[in-house]
Amino acid sequence: MNAPSLLKKLLRRVVPPIDSQRSAQRKAHNVIALCHALLSERGEVSGTALAREALAAYEELPANAFKPFINLLADEFSPAPADIAAAFKAYQDNPSALNLIALQHAVEPPRQELFRRLNVAAGGTAVLVDMRRRMLRELQSNPHWLAVDADFVHLLSSWFNRGFLRLERIDWHTPAIVLEKLIQYEAVHEIAGWQDLHRRLANDRRCFAFFHPALPDEPVIFIEVALTDRISDAVQPLLDPDKAESSTTRSDCAIFFSITNCQDGLRGISFGNLLIKQVVHELSREFPRLKIFATLSPIPGFRAWLDAMMPEISASARGAEAVELFKHLQEPDWFSKPDVAARLQPLLMPLCAYYLIEAKKDGEPLDPVARFHLGNGASMTQLNWLSDTSKHGMKRSAGLMVNYLYRLDDVESNHQAFVVGHRVVASYALKKLARECLLMQTPDKN
Amino acid sequence: MNAPSLLKKLLRRVVPPIDSQRSAQRKAHNVIALCHALLSERGEVSGTALAREALAAYEELPANAFKPFINLLADEFSPAPADIAAAFKAYQDNPSALNLIALQHAVEPPRQELFRRLNVAAGGTAVLVDMRRRMLRELQSNPHWLAVDADFVHLLSSWFNRGFLRLERIDWHTPAIVLEKLIQYEAVHEIAGWQDLHRRLANDRRCFAFFHPALPDEPVIFIEVALTDRISDAVQPLLDPDKAESSTTRSDCAIFFSITNCQDGLRGISFGNLLIKQVVHELSREFPRLKIFATLSPIPGFRAWLDAMMPEISASARGAEAVELFKHLQEPDWFSKPDVAARLQPLLMPLCAYYLIEAKKDGEPLDPVARFHLGNGASMTQLNWLSDTSKHGMKRSAGLMVNYLYRLDDVESNHQAFVVGHRVVASYALKKLARECLLMQTPDKN
Amino acid sequence: MNAPSLLKKLLRRVVPPIDSQRSAQRKAHNVIALCHALLSERGEVSGTALAREALAAYEELPANAFKPFINLLADEFSPAPADIAAAFKAYQDNPSALNLIALQHAVEPPRQELFRRLNVAAGGTAVLVDMRRRMLRELQSNPHWLAVDADFVHLLSSWFNRGFLRLERIDWHTPAIVLEKLIQYEAVHEIAGWQDLHRRLANDRRCFAFFHPALPDEPVIFIEVALTDRISDAVQPLLDPDKAESSTTRSDCAIFFSITNCQDGLRGISFGNLLIKQVVHELSREFPRLKIFATLSPIPGFRAWLDAMMPEISASARGAEAVELFKHLQEPDWFSKPDVAARLQPLLMPLCAYYLIEAKKDGEPLDPVARFHLGNGASMTQLNWLSDTSKHGMKRSAGLMVNYLYRLDDVESNHQAFVVGHRVVASYALKKLARECLLMQTPDKN
Amino acid sequence: MNAPSLLKKLLRRVVPPIDSQRSAQRKAHNVIALCHALLSERGEVSGTALAREALAAYEELPANAFKPFINLLADEFSPAPADIAAAFKAYQDNPSALNLIALQHAVEPPRQELFRRLNVAAGGTAVLVDMRRRMLRELQSNPHWLAVDADFVHLLSSWFNRGFLRLERIDWHTPAIVLEKLIQYEAVHEIAGWQDLHRRLANDRRCFAFFHPALPDEPVIFIEVALTDRISDAVQPLLDPDKAESSTTRSDCAIFFSITNCQDGLRGISFGNLLIKQVVHELSREFPRLKIFATLSPIPGFRAWLDAMMPEISASARGAEAVELFKHLQEPDWFSKPDVAARLQPLLMPLCAYYLIEAKKDGEPLDPVARFHLGNGASMTQLNWLSDTSKHGMKRSAGLMVNYLYRLDDVESNHQAFVVGHRVVASYALKKLARECLLMQTPDKN
Repeated sequence: MNAPSLLKKLLRRVVPPIDSQRSAQRKAHNVIALCHALLSERGEVSGTALAREALAAYEELPANAFKPFINLLADEFSPAPADIAAAFKAYQDNPSALNLIALQHAVEPPRQELFRRLNVAAGGTAVLVDMRRRMLRELQSNPHWLAVDADFVHLLSSWFNRGFLRLERIDWHTPAIVLEKLIQYEAVHEIAGWQDLHRRLANDRRCFAFFHPALPDEPVIFIEVALTDRISDAVQPLLDPDKAESSTTRSDCAIFFSITNCQDGLRGISFGNLLIKQVVHELSREFPRLKIFATLSPIPGFRAWLDAMMPEISASARGAEAVELFKHLQEPDWFSKPDVAARLQPLLMPLCAYYLIEAKKDGEPLDPVARFHLGNGASMTQLNWLSDTSKHGMKRSAGLMVNYLYRLDDVESNHQAFVVGHRVVASYALKKLARECLLMQTPDKN
Repeated sequence: MNAPSLLKKLLRRVVPPIDSQRSAQRKAHNVIALCHALLSERGEVSGTALAREALAAYEELPANAFKPFINLLADEFSPAPADIAAAFKAYQDNPSALNLIALQHAVEPPRQELFRRLNVAAGGTAVLVDMRRRMLRELQSNPHWLAVDADFVHLLSSWFNRGFLRLERIDWHTPAIVLEKLIQYEAVHEIAGWQDLHRRLANDRRCFAFFHPALPDEPVIFIEVALTDRISDAVQPLLDPDKAESSTTRSDCAIFFSITNCQDGLRGISFGNLLIKQVVHELSREFPRLKIFATLSPIPGFRAWLDAMMPEISASARGAEAVELFKHLQEPDWFSKPDVAARLQPLLMPLCAYYLIEAKKDGEPLDPVARFHLGNGASMTQLNWLSDTSKHGMKRSAGLMVNYLYRLDDVESNHQAFVVGHRVVASYALKKLARECLLMQTPDKN
Repeated sequence: MNAPSLLKKLLRRVVPPIDSQRSAQRKAHNVIALCHALLSERGEVSGTALAREALAAYEELPANAFKPFINLLADEFSPAPADIAAAFKAYQDNPSALNLIALQHAVEPPRQELFRRLNVAAGGTAVLVDMRRRMLRELQSNPHWLAVDADFVHLLSSWFNRGFLRLERIDWHTPAIVLEKLIQYEAVHEIAGWQDLHRRLANDRRCFAFFHPALPDEPVIFIEVALTDRISDAVQPLLDPDKAESSTTRSDCAIFFSITNCQDGLRGISFGNLLIKQVVHELSREFPRLKIFATLSPIPGFRAWLDAMMPEISASARGAEAVELFKHLQEPDWFSKPDVAARLQPLLMPLCAYYLIEAKKDGEPLDPVARFHLGNGASMTQLNWLSDTSKHGMKRSAGLMVNYLYRLDDVESNHQAFVVGHRVVASYALKKLARECLLMQTPDKN
Repeated sequence: MNAPSLLKKLLRRVVPPIDSQRSAQRKAHNVIALCHALLSERGEVSGTALAREALAAYEELPANAFKPFINLLADEFSPAPADIAAAFKAYQDNPSALNLIALQHAVEPPRQELFRRLNVAAGGTAVLVDMRRRMLRELQSNPHWLAVDADFVHLLSSWFNRGFLRLERIDWHTPAIVLEKLIQYEAVHEIAGWQDLHRRLANDRRCFAFFHPALPDEPVIFIEVALTDRISDAVQPLLDPDKAESSTTRSDCAIFFSITNCQDGLRGISFGNLLIKQVVHELSREFPRLKIFATLSPIPGFRAWLDAMMPEISASARGAEAVELFKHLQEPDWFSKPDVAARLQPLLMPLCAYYLIEAKKDGEPLDPVARFHLGNGASMTQLNWLSDTSKHGMKRSAGLMVNYLYRLDDVESNHQAFVVGHRVVASYALKKLARECLLMQTPDKN
């Protein structure tokens, strides 16, 4: 291959040639033409066939036609400002029920009706959820797509209403086509393959998922639970595929060690809260002896926060010593050196407790997992040392994990306290630990 | 019982005593208070439990609390005009995507979110559909309920999107709990009991229904089909429970003889069009020999129209004679008198053809069944004499019935012709018949 | 029709003409030829197709070919005496395992292998069960068919082993095709139609059936249970279709009021014993409050026995008076005359208790229902006056019914007592009642 | 561990100490005692509970109690010779139906009734099938167990009658608990794991299995099929997990490349014949274009036969040269050396054809796979060079494989020819190839 042709090839990869762009534009236009037809009178009578045709055409679009397609969706299916103004005027003159309804129709983008009609085709819901997934990946660089996303959110919130979701237990009797999705989607503690998965579905484990009737082989969200004799303080024993099954006859504790949203296209439509609570009910029914329902959760923001806090730490009493010690955190295997670990523990544990309880952004906890569980009405109960020593666990939180407790009698008041006063409900031990933190002591010393 | 107490009792029935009204009002308020709680922060975390509680309280409301309850729904969950005005102003100043979204939120009644949250409880969808059913019965006398109904229509249209409905065949393997609903709901040709039903589900019949996942034992709409050797011109042979099953190996015709919407609470959300077309596909797959798909339909408005037209008829040529003859229509058994029937036929058939093709209201066919099938893209093909001699059939259409033809290749153009030019697509024979009508000849004679 | 032809017609009905008999004989031979083919080498490779063909040919046999067909089955598929003798001789000379196996093969009729091969066709089991049903109806007049029946019993006992039966609850969610079988088969208390059936499947009732995988829509046996607050002493309240459902929250008693074997072709292969016990387990799980499991059973042989005992009764002390009183039993409505009933009760109750406990045949209770339940290990607990006042109930047992108690802890010892010593386990009250009987007092008076 | 104890430990492994043997003997006796109870009167009423107890006790037997247990089964549940002699005498005197039935009962070991009663417990069938599996492993060294095995065969043949088996398609929607059994059982071409399995269940493959209702998650036998454009001549392309799926729209050929009996405990009860034929029907329905149904089968006995034939080969014309060439067969990778392969092919192909067609034992083909397919009525159609170059394939048949053709119209006559005249139905090409074989030419040269 000579030099010019290589250059051409490289260029083609970065900037698609004008021809290809034109073709993509044309193809996007063709799909949009079908969408207009679907919204017309013709769509009313031949809806299913047209919807099928439009979705098929969309799915055959080349990758570089996606952006033009969404641009057209954003441009051509929005309500007309003049119509809105007229409807508002009528409503302002006479705020009757009929005029309000007319105004609601005027502000509703025709896109919503388009999405409803596309959904009529078999498999339509899956295509639309996937369309949003792809759109979200480029939403930040295309802010005018927000209007399209708002229509998606509006419809998907209705369609994926909890009342339409089925809770199902996942176990070794589940079809392989669903099980492979668990392996693929698991976001918290990677599943290494079928043997690993089999262990996670054994008799001393439970796995539940929400399914939607329009996505038959696709879990919407799933949760993994271990039945244990006491609150787990480390995740590796729960994940070990070779660990023998334990009997559940004496189990008094259910540990939620992983919860995964499977559908990126449903981002922002929350199911986790509902799933956890329903699973608590299911487990209580199957195992009346269960007393404690708690998570064993990662603390994803701790290490980043710690790095950002180095100036404050350095400025605190004994700060120099701490900064020196923290250099060990760069060593990948520091946790396996007993003396290093022993010296880090009394420093890191209080700092992490402080992070969880005190570190805030706009009044809410900085840590996203804390935000989720506290928002659900859970409370923080116990911080665990060397609890997740996987590469990932060491990197995000220096191996620390925390248990959030779900006590159904308290979730409502906890949630209220959290929402109204931004109060973090934590155990006495955790709060005490936070108070022992280097950063708390600084003011006293000054 | 003495006279005063009888009077009291009668009065109580008509006008509930003030006490009872106050109590009803109070109970309605209590349910509304739960609805407000469900919409609050508290509802976010305890949604399912609160939704269950609110629905249970609603279902225990006494009959006379229903109206106060809907009144409160209409009053307390509407958007604030000031908020709407503010959002419109911001949008007018800058019609950005974000401002449009904000305006959409401002005009959306909180009722919609309330309904979404109520739907979260198990069985919630069924309660909401039934709530609308009851509301519709009194909507005319409570026009301000329109706003509530608009919210129902908006949500139910999304929830009952065709993409979420399952087509299922109904036969003798179907659970009794579903079959008894058919007996209960059948609106066109009453089902006399289980034996009658059994015949309608035999091998030379087909019955299909749409089901929604949230209403598991409730058909949404169902259709009954007879497989025949040629187009049926009379319905009694199709309904006769004692008629022997015929073989379907030579059937070339599928006659849709009954289509019933089961859920009054879903009125205005149309499924019939989609059901008919999907059933045509299903039957074509099972019976590749089928050539003709047609209905055998009632003409519900014919007799009423005929009565209303008496002055014009009377004024027409041979009008006096006709009016004299039409007196026989008052006799319940005129159709069994050969000479009477023989004289009525040449008068009634053309008049009915004229009614179907020419009688209009706002440009659309006066007959509601004609409106439905022509709107779906069907064409009128054949008018049938003494086709439904049941009491009901004689009363509504003097025993006449008509076949609408579903030819999938033509439905789109038929529909287009109907919608755009209000054109009634009918066979040559029917149009010729209409031209022979008394009323058509009048002008010529003048 | 003239006289001779009428005579001919009558004759034809009684004695089929020789032609028809010959044709039937020929057709039976044809089916038998297919059976021989199925047993041959050819059957080994084309088994399924041949089995299908043979069964189809069998099912098309005219009614009068059935007897010739079974005759041929009895004649042509029996083992050869010479083979048996030879095999026995070898076994006698050397009673080795191999020689015993050879002898077993020699005595096994080829019919068994024929039935096994017929069963291979889809639906084969149902045809064979029905073949035996028809055969049993004429077995008494064809004693040589016993050999055929023995082969049926041998195979059906294996095929319908309890291990292959599924217990299923029958309720209003059950397919109509199964429910109509209950109406058709119910043998103890006739089901008057679908409304009656619906009441028997309501929330305060339970119905369970055994199903076999090869007879998918056919219950093998079913049982009906009422959940009550105390032991029922009358059956009409349990059967009343208009009676309101009662709450089951306080129920402490399960009354088995009907148990029906559905398949005459499985006669002699007992399931009732197993069904009752498994249903006791199922109900205990669903309703932990249940304390008493009892039947409310007919006493089918009482009236016939009473009539047969008239000489003894007449000869007893106060015999004349009793015989006079018993004349009232001929009046169909005697039970609705309080004075007659009041005088009959002190006579009939002890006699019936005596019948149940003392009347024997070959050492076993004369009453077949008593034999069944006592053989299962139940005990007699209570005799009930005017307990079944239906026409049938009055006729078979003068309206009396009895409760058999199933106490799982006792069934084994009760059964043992019954089998070994022919002991009837009955409550003290019942035994006392029996001792008060007219017939017991006779000897004292002599 | 000191030396003596090591010796003791080793000894214990080979010869269990007397204590352990006595204990095993005692435990076996205990289970047998339960078996006797189950056969007694007591078993009639408490059957299910006793069966459960006996099976549980059996399953807890230590490994060294199995043999004593089966010995006791063989000794204590056989019919009494005296009873047999008496029944035979009665039959000989009067060979009536009743006397024949009595004789049949006399020769039937009580073991059969014992097995029937054990089968009543939940899961009983699985335990019995497994009991036979274990027994078969030691049957040769315990010939007196033949009597027990005969009873197993008698009952299992009835219970696993084809009429009770369900054909099910296995694909990626099948529960993992079933799929892992395929990986575990596959006997012809090992499945390397879940990815390999997934490929074998893709759209251009089909897998079917027979299931029995009493063994819900256990396939009885399964078959793997590839849909191809023409007859496959090599198996590696079919097994390659990375090969892209091919479209099935033009497929005209179904290749059965693996058939596996899963249950050793059902040995001798044949399903393969029935499975293949039913799968041919299923595939014909799904793919009406399919013209050819053929296997791609191993030739397991070829290499062993070839070695045994060396003297004859050596004695033939050009024998010395052949023997010299055959030394290459010891080299594991000879097939990858083009010149070696090219010289071996003209020698091996005719010899293998000769082996398949002419090598016999007791008149039947020596090769077991040939015996199976020819016995089913298939014909041999094509011999394939370097068709299975796996280690296993090279070792058993020098890489050769053969296609057996299933033409449903011919199977009956093929089978007949095979059974009656021991005729091997093979294609002209194959027969010609066999005639070219070294061994065939010998006589001519002499």
